[in-house]
Amino acid sequence: MSSTLGNLFKVTTFGESHGKGVGAIVDGCPPGLALGEGDIQPQLDRRRPGQTHLTTDREETDRVTILSGVENGRALGTPIGMSVANKDQRPGDYADMRSVPRPSHADYTYQMKYGIRTSSGGGRSSARETIGRVAAGAIAEKFLHEDYGIEIVAWVSSVSTITADEVDENRITRAEVDQTAVRCPSGPKADEMIRAIMAAKDDKDSLGGIISCVCRHVPAGLGEPVFDKMEACLAHAMLSIPATKGFEIGSGFEGTRMSGSRHNDPFIKKEDRLGTVTNYSGGVQGGISNGEPIIFRVAFKPPATIGKSQNTADFNGNHMVLEAKGRHDPCVVPRAVPIVESMAALVIADLALQQRARKHY
Amino acid sequence: MSSTLGNLFKVTTFGESHGKGVGAIVDGCPPGLALGEGDIQPQLDRRRPGQTHLTTDREETDRVTILSGVENGRALGTPIGMSVANKDQRPGDYADMRSVPRPSHADYTYQMKYGIRTSSGGGRSSARETIGRVAAGAIAEKFLHEDYGIEIVAWVSSVSTITADEVDENRITRAEVDQTAVRCPSGPKADEMIRAIMAAKDDKDSLGGIISCVCRHVPAGLGEPVFDKMEACLAHAMLSIPATKGFEIGSGFEGTRMSGSRHNDPFIKKEDRLGTVTNYSGGVQGGISNGEPIIFRVAFKPPATIGKSQNTADFNGNHMVLEAKGRHDPCVVPRAVPIVESMAALVIADLALQQRARKHY
Amino acid sequence: MSSTLGNLFKVTTFGESHGKGVGAIVDGCPPGLALGEGDIQPQLDRRRPGQTHLTTDREETDRVTILSGVENGRALGTPIGMSVANKDQRPGDYADMRSVPRPSHADYTYQMKYGIRTSSGGGRSSARETIGRVAAGAIAEKFLHEDYGIEIVAWVSSVSTITADEVDENRITRAEVDQTAVRCPSGPKADEMIRAIMAAKDDKDSLGGIISCVCRHVPAGLGEPVFDKMEACLAHAMLSIPATKGFEIGSGFEGTRMSGSRHNDPFIKKEDRLGTVTNYSGGVQGGISNGEPIIFRVAFKPPATIGKSQNTADFNGNHMVLEAKGRHDPCVVPRAVPIVESMAALVIADLALQQRARKHY
Amino acid sequence: MSSTLGNLFKVTTFGESHGKGVGAIVDGCPPGLALGEGDIQPQLDRRRPGQTHLTTDREETDRVTILSGVENGRALGTPIGMSVANKDQRPGDYADMRSVPRPSHADYTYQMKYGIRTSSGGGRSSARETIGRVAAGAIAEKFLHEDYGIEIVAWVSSVSTITADEVDENRITRAEVDQTAVRCPSGPKADEMIRAIMAAKDDKDSLGGIISCVCRHVPAGLGEPVFDKMEACLAHAMLSIPATKGFEIGSGFEGTRMSGSRHNDPFIKKEDRLGTVTNYSGGVQGGISNGEPIIFRVAFKPPATIGKSQNTADFNGNHMVLEAKGRHDPCVVPRAVPIVESMAALVIADLALQQRARKHY
Repeated sequence: MSSTLGNLFKVTTFGESHGKGVGAIVDGCPPGLALGEGDIQPQLDRRRPGQTHLTTDREETDRVTILSGVENGRALGTPIGMSVANKDQRPGDYADMRSVPRPSHADYTYQMKYGIRTSSGGGRSSARETIGRVAAGAIAEKFLHEDYGIEIVAWVSSVSTITADEVDENRITRAEVDQTAVRCPSGPKADEMIRAIMAAKDDKDSLGGIISCVCRHVPAGLGEPVFDKMEACLAHAMLSIPATKGFEIGSGFEGTRMSGSRHNDPFIKKEDRLGTVTNYSGGVQGGISNGEPIIFRVAFKPPATIGKSQNTADFNGNHMVLEAKGRHDPCVVPRAVPIVESMAALVIADLALQQRARKHY
Repeated sequence: MSSTLGNLFKVTTFGESHGKGVGAIVDGCPPGLALGEGDIQPQLDRRRPGQTHLTTDREETDRVTILSGVENGRALGTPIGMSVANKDQRPGDYADMRSVPRPSHADYTYQMKYGIRTSSGGGRSSARETIGRVAAGAIAEKFLHEDYGIEIVAWVSSVSTITADEVDENRITRAEVDQTAVRCPSGPKADEMIRAIMAAKDDKDSLGGIISCVCRHVPAGLGEPVFDKMEACLAHAMLSIPATKGFEIGSGFEGTRMSGSRHNDPFIKKEDRLGTVTNYSGGVQGGISNGEPIIFRVAFKPPATIGKSQNTADFNGNHMVLEAKGRHDPCVVPRAVPIVESMAALVIADLALQQRARKHY
Repeated sequence: MSSTLGNLFKVTTFGESHGKGVGAIVDGCPPGLALGEGDIQPQLDRRRPGQTHLTTDREETDRVTILSGVENGRALGTPIGMSVANKDQRPGDYADMRSVPRPSHADYTYQMKYGIRTSSGGGRSSARETIGRVAAGAIAEKFLHEDYGIEIVAWVSSVSTITADEVDENRITRAEVDQTAVRCPSGPKADEMIRAIMAAKDDKDSLGGIISCVCRHVPAGLGEPVFDKMEACLAHAMLSIPATKGFEIGSGFEGTRMSGSRHNDPFIKKEDRLGTVTNYSGGVQGGISNGEPIIFRVAFKPPATIGKSQNTADFNGNHMVLEAKGRHDPCVVPRAVPIVESMAALVIADLALQQRARKHY
Repeated sequence: MSSTLGNLFKVTTFGESHGKGVGAIVDGCPPGLALGEGDIQPQLDRRRPGQTHLTTDREETDRVTILSGVENGRALGTPIGMSVANKDQRPGDYADMRSVPRPSHADYTYQMKYGIRTSSGGGRSSARETIGRVAAGAIAEKFLHEDYGIEIVAWVSSVSTITADEVDENRITRAEVDQTAVRCPSGPKADEMIRAIMAAKDDKDSLGGIISCVCRHVPAGLGEPVFDKMEACLAHAMLSIPATKGFEIGSGFEGTRMSGSRHNDPFIKKEDRLGTVTNYSGGVQGGISNGEPIIFRVAFKPPATIGKSQNTADFNGNHMVLEAKGRHDPCVVPRAVPIVESMAALVIADLALQQRARKHY
């Protein structure tokens, strides 16, 4: 499917950093949904660079234009075309990289795959590609919130070796997350993270981190066995975000160390539904949501493009020393928070529509 | 897509534990490939229960029959239908579970999703569903080995808190993996794992674990940006295996703690190709294979069905004590090894065919 | 998609004439639907050869076995695996054809496509492949009838140059269609058709024909603009049936000769809905059903395999005279009636589920 | 799939007549293909209204902008985003139609499907939606011509009851087709057609017609059994064009009147390949191209929007007399010629890539 994700709520993105623009087509948005550019812009603003001193200095305004599929503030049910213009291209920054593939970046693999690549390097692996995802995800979120009251909140739970304090997944809000520049809701740890990122920036180096995400009020029954389990679709969506290296849901890797008798989540009556006492399952059982919060974590590696000099080789295998020019995020996790939320929304919206299609006799 | 996986090398599975059989249709197998039931049975044998004292005592012979798509030992390029008969069904074992959903099992979520479920509980969440995957994966592996010399080897790298010693990913073989009943190639640790599993079995409890997998000789260029990155497709496939809770590739979650200058894999000339000195990337960059071994890990939770008594609730929310009857694996990771290998093969075969379709000018 | 059709109500077929069996997996059947082999067998019986002297003498009993997805007479919502054993294979009949591709048959094109082909010739172009479609279509029909009261009836409206009298599309039933061996509901014309087919059989030749089909009580609103218009999906499905050469809906090709003022179907109040006075549209407008009967016609060419001697060339281009051995239908349209109905049911079921997924605000 | 067509060469379109623009994303274009807006604009120019006195007077310049996927005149292999601005919207023209659905138009069915519709009526059923198809088709054509020398030429073979003379399908060119305003290459008949269209225009009425199309130099082996036969995919694509009512390939409906011995196309040696003496098959056998020209015909109904007064009903079922305002084509077939060519190119490009992915042993 390449640049298309989803079965019923479907998004197709386009665009690299070098062309005239980036964007997406969302096909399958429920008709009549109240929708406008104002529903989309806030998440784009949270995603764009230049918000704080933690990110690249590039100023990108990233204003979205809806081209189709909406009239008089209502979705028509037809494809919603959206575009965001590219500005501030400095191809000169990339001149060195034409002959020297950046280590751990996509320059080399794009060349091997396509036999051609953009002058700016890894083409679609550019962070700007994620604009289309965030725009589409904002629409999915609007639908999920209107219909189910679903709330999706992601936050930075670690930067490098600095781990945030426990967060109450039942209550955490985006407002709380946005209180610190690093989008970590535990204040003192956030300060530590910020200092670490600034130090890495000064050092022309970069840092990785982990984003946690909770999806609340997802009704029981979403997720398609066998291959489109909720967690499988979430993992797919998250590992499709640039720079990700891992995904875990509920107890995750740590849960492998527990016994079944401790790990099992006992059922208990919760108001009008059956709930669970604990939530090691992370809100899914057998690939299907069980009504508890869906909780997962995504690992982001340190960005590959760094100013620090690196010993490497050019395309011909000759030894080279590379110092990447240009402006690069020393740590992507603060800006990746809305991307994680958007991808989660796209997955859940698609599975919600699929379940809606299922008639029970 | 539900019960279908893949775009060009496509598998559709069917079957629960209670019906007449399980199986799969593989569509897209390259025509002319030498193929017979003998290519498929060995992995099914590694998957089936009753191989050792570590697994459930159920004897399942699980003989595969090819119904179509092969003639005179050659694949025709047409759909390969395969079936395996179900035997040894003891619906009585499940009688209690009709009114009490097993904690952390799919009984409850299947009921919520479908409004109906099999008498044996979670239907397609049954481990028998994986038979179709393994049969299909064996075909994918044959193709990948014939065409690219690809080798896929998975092994148990931890059981509960017991972690295997470092394994040489460039050399590990299935024969070495199969030398211990627990499919862990580091002998003393394997013994510890076996003792832990036997203790859990005696205790009517269960244990989780981690499976590591390496795919060697995957050519550079496989993986489709944006949404069908190699790691995204692998994560999807792995998290679709029952009981999985996490996936990581290369440095994974641990890599989030490293700086970019250390994490980046410098390029270096390797014989006729550009390789990397380290492999924190796990064989992929920008979602595309780079020619280095693809290395990933999958977290399996402790099985949910345990004989130990559990406090829980029935479908109506009334408190109940449940002791699951029947025979259940105390730890699934040894048997899940061929499943992980099969899913990896299905993903890589599909991406290989997609790249083959790509013309370079 | 090759051997898979549909997005939500999805069928994947397998099998050629030479292997152990043919069949299908239906994924997406609504859970709880009352279903058993008895719902499927009648259409298979209408499809199989040997029903009358008009068809090939081959006796095929074609008993379907449900392998999965149904328990206690109810669909589980999980994939329904079905298989039908192959019997009565006479590979000797095809010996000559190994070096001489039958004119207008698939022997040559399969060889060009796959570089290999079955000993019986065109592999999946075998009429036996349609067994899986008919089995799947019977399930789709059951769902459509239970949920919407949809009735699908096809009949033979011409054989060679003999055209049936006008049929009342609002009332025609399968029982009426089955009153003649040729499945043409206008008696005297049916007799003519039968005589023509018998004459062709004696002459070792073959005849073509046209099948008409009506789908009644399809609710307004089914069909997905842009590319999955109702008529586009029907055309796709019909032209995927072996030996078909054309499809038209409503006024079809004849309608191109009318003026707009005559061709337009004026709206009029019909009980509780808006209907149309005429139905040149054939029940669809803008690709979406309008609540009127969906009416279409499918052209079937005369079967390519004939006993009559033909001047042709072998695979090397050498001139040859070919006389096909074996038993072949002189005219496929009577047996193709349930296939047309089945394909229509599969298309409409899939579009019905897609529309069901669409939330209106 | 709704607004997406294709498996490997994939197009997703967006846009109605009322929004800011229309366009498409082409995903899967082979990387390195020489490509620019100049390759796309000519077919858009042939499609746009206002070319001649035969079409609506609306002047639409319809300049395409490539937003992504191309750099330095070469396709990058990444999604090619294209947009065309909407101009000249006169919503006032549609005021009457808000309460009265146009007979045989999509106003009613869109309302039933979506519960909402654009102020201009049938939304995506607007002719402007085809702009995205034509832009995408031009890219597909470029690829097919570069790689296989494929030529696709469509022409008007009838308008109302006026049928063009026989055309030599082996030689007909677009230049010849464009010599008359009606795009019919047989001069005297073209004059008749033009007079008939002008008379219909004066009469505020409309006319239908048939477009024929030939695809030359398609290699043998394209088309995917079972469900994605070449003719099935072509039928799907053609019946997805607005106002189409029928599709036939090769001998089509007329072929149903022939005997098999006459209809079969005998094989004969043609230079380096096996060809056929006749081509009643229309270039396909068993759903797979055989190397002969692919020939098909598409039926277009007379346009539904006419100025002539019509007796009909409003949405509430009340009798109304409707006279559509605005400017409407009295006959769409001349402008639909490039649309038919584009859809054919999209189908063949997709099947060509699928066949390319198929490894032969």
